[in-house]
Amino acid sequence: MPTVWTNHKTSESLAAVLKARVEARGWVCLQAEDAKATDAEVLLGQPSLQALRDCPKARWVHVTSAGYGRYTAAQAEFETRRITLTKSSEVFAMPCAQQVLAYMLAQSRQLPAAFESQRSHRHWAHGTIRGNTRVLEGQRVAIVGYGQIGTCLAQLLGPFNMRIQGLRRNPGPADAFPMHQLGSYEGDSCLGQADHVVNLLPGVESTARFFDPRRIGKLKAGSVFYNMGRGSTVNQEALLNALRSGQLAAAWLDVTDPEPLPPEHPLWVTPNCYITPHTGGGRQDEAATILRHFLDNFDRFVDGEPLVDVVQWPAFSD
Amino acid sequence: MPTVWTNHKTSESLAAVLKARVEARGWVCLQAEDAKATDAEVLLGQPSLQALRDCPKARWVHVTSAGYGRYTAAQAEFETRRITLTKSSEVFAMPCAQQVLAYMLAQSRQLPAAFESQRSHRHWAHGTIRGNTRVLEGQRVAIVGYGQIGTCLAQLLGPFNMRIQGLRRNPGPADAFPMHQLGSYEGDSCLGQADHVVNLLPGVESTARFFDPRRIGKLKAGSVFYNMGRGSTVNQEALLNALRSGQLAAAWLDVTDPEPLPPEHPLWVTPNCYITPHTGGGRQDEAATILRHFLDNFDRFVDGEPLVDVVQWPAFSD
Repeated sequence: MPTVWTNHKTSESLAAVLKARVEARGWVCLQAEDAKATDAEVLLGQPSLQALRDCPKARWVHVTSAGYGRYTAAQAEFETRRITLTKSSEVFAMPCAQQVLAYMLAQSRQLPAAFESQRSHRHWAHGTIRGNTRVLEGQRVAIVGYGQIGTCLAQLLGPFNMRIQGLRRNPGPADAFPMHQLGSYEGDSCLGQADHVVNLLPGVESTARFFDPRRIGKLKAGSVFYNMGRGSTVNQEALLNALRSGQLAAAWLDVTDPEPLPPEHPLWVTPNCYITPHTGGGRQDEAATILRHFLDNFDRFVDGEPLVDVVQWPAFSD
Repeated sequence: MPTVWTNHKTSESLAAVLKARVEARGWVCLQAEDAKATDAEVLLGQPSLQALRDCPKARWVHVTSAGYGRYTAAQAEFETRRITLTKSSEVFAMPCAQQVLAYMLAQSRQLPAAFESQRSHRHWAHGTIRGNTRVLEGQRVAIVGYGQIGTCLAQLLGPFNMRIQGLRRNPGPADAFPMHQLGSYEGDSCLGQADHVVNLLPGVESTARFFDPRRIGKLKAGSVFYNMGRGSTVNQEALLNALRSGQLAAAWLDVTDPEPLPPEHPLWVTPNCYITPHTGGGRQDEAATILRHFLDNFDRFVDGEPLVDVVQWPAFSD
C-alpha cells in the first residue's frame, strides 16, 4: 500500500487524526520512530536530505515550515527525480502579516517609548511621546519578497490608505499595485523612497545579504526596517550602523543571523532595534492548522489535483 | 463685522492661515491674547464657560479636542441660547483607532513579552513567547461607545474576520454588525462573551464608572480590556482586581483617572497593564488637521450648511 512517512512532531490526538485520514484514503501512515522512510511515496515533517535519498519511491515532500532552506542544495535532485516539494507557508502567512502590522503600528503609535517610560520612571510623558506618534495614511511601504505573507499584509493594509509597492523575483501583470523586479534599478529606487521597508525574503542562495551595505545605505532617512523573512538576507553590520547613526528610525526583527541571536550581540542592546524571537508564524491553532493544511494537500495528491504551496524552484540562470 | 475669537494655541504660520481664511469670508479673527470674546459669534479652541457667558452673541463653539466634558454642565445653556457645540473627533478618530489596533496586535503577537525579554536577559525565548501568540481571526470584539473611533476601528478590522459587536446609546437599524443598547441586558451579555473589550466611552455624566465592579466581574476569563475613551468610565479598583486575579489577560489604557496617573498608582506596576499617556489621538499632522477641520466647518457655517462633528446632547431623560 502507498505510504506516508512522517517525522512531524505533534500531539497524540492530532497524530491519530493524521493516521485516520491517511488510512481512510487507503494509504499507510508510518511514524519516524517506528519505521524508516525507505518505502514511502510521501514524506511529511522535516525529513533530512539523507532520508529522501534513501527513499527511492518518494514523489512528494511536504515540510511543516514556511522555510525550506535546507532543501535548496538538493534542487537538482528534486527536479531530476520529479519530486514535488510543498511547504506550509499558507499556515504562517497570516500570523506573520499580523506581526508585521503589529510592528508598524507599535512603531507609529510609539508603544516602545510608552513601555520604557512605564517600566522605568512612570512619568506621564504625554508631550514627548504624543509628539512622535504617526498615522499610517499616505506613508510609503515597500514589501520585499512579495508572496503569501505580502499578500496577506496588503489585505490588512487595505483600509490604511498607504502607498504600497512590492518587489519580487517575477513581477506579474495582475499585481494590484506597482511591483518591481528584485534587484532592478526601479526596485532599489522604491526601497530608497519607502517610509516602511518590509523584508519578507526567504533564506535561499539568491537572496543572501540582499540588504547589503549599499542598499541599506540608500534607505530613506527616518524610515523603519522590518524583517519577517530570514536573517541571512541582511548584512547585520550595515543594519547596525544604520540604526546607530539614526538613518533608520528603528528596526523590528523577527529573524536574525544566527538564531538564537547570542546574548552578547549588539543588536539586542541597540535602543531602536526591537527583536522578537522568531515568533511571527505563531498562532493559537498552529498544530491543527499545519495538519489540516497537509491533509487538504494529501486529498489533492490522492485525487490527482494540483497541490497548493508548491515550491517554485528558481531557474538555474537566476 | 462678525467675529471668530480663538484661544487655540498653534504655530504662527497656522495662526496666519486661520486669520487669512477667516478674513477671506469677510469675518474678523481675534486672538485671546489681544481681545476678549465679548463680541464674538464663533469661539474656537478651549473657551471657558465664563468666556461663553460673557459673550452674548455666541452662536457656535468649536473645541479643538474630541472630548467636551467641561461643557456638559452647561448643556441647558447651550440649548437655551441655541449655541451649537462642535468638537474635533474626526481629527482624532483614526489615530485612536490605529492605536487600539496597535494594542490588539501587540497583545496578540506578544510584543510586551518579547520586549521585556530583550530588555532584561536577552534570551531567545522562542518557545514560551510563540506559544502564546494569537491571530485575531474569529475572535470576538465588543466596541463600547461605538461612534467615530469605533467606525474607524471597524474599518481597520475589516480584513481580520473578527466577530464584531457594538454598544452605543442609540443603536440604529443601519449598523453593519450587531449593535446593542448601552446598559441593556444584551449589551452586557455581549461584553461577557468578548475576547477584546474596547472602551471608547466619552467622559460624560451618564457614562461615569460604566465599567463598574459588576460589569468588570462578568468579563470573560482571559479577555483583554482596552480604554481609549475616558478614565472616568472605569472603576479602576475593579479593573486592578481583575488584572491581579488573571481574570483579564491584560489591559491597555490610554486614559486613566486621574491624569497624569500618579507615579505611585498600582496600575503602573501591574505586569499585565500597559499604559500610554493619552497619546492615542496623536498624529504627525495634528495641528494642521485640527485647523483644516475647523476651517471646513467654518465655511459650512458661513454658507449656512450643516456642520460636522456636532455634539448631540443627551435627552434629559437619559
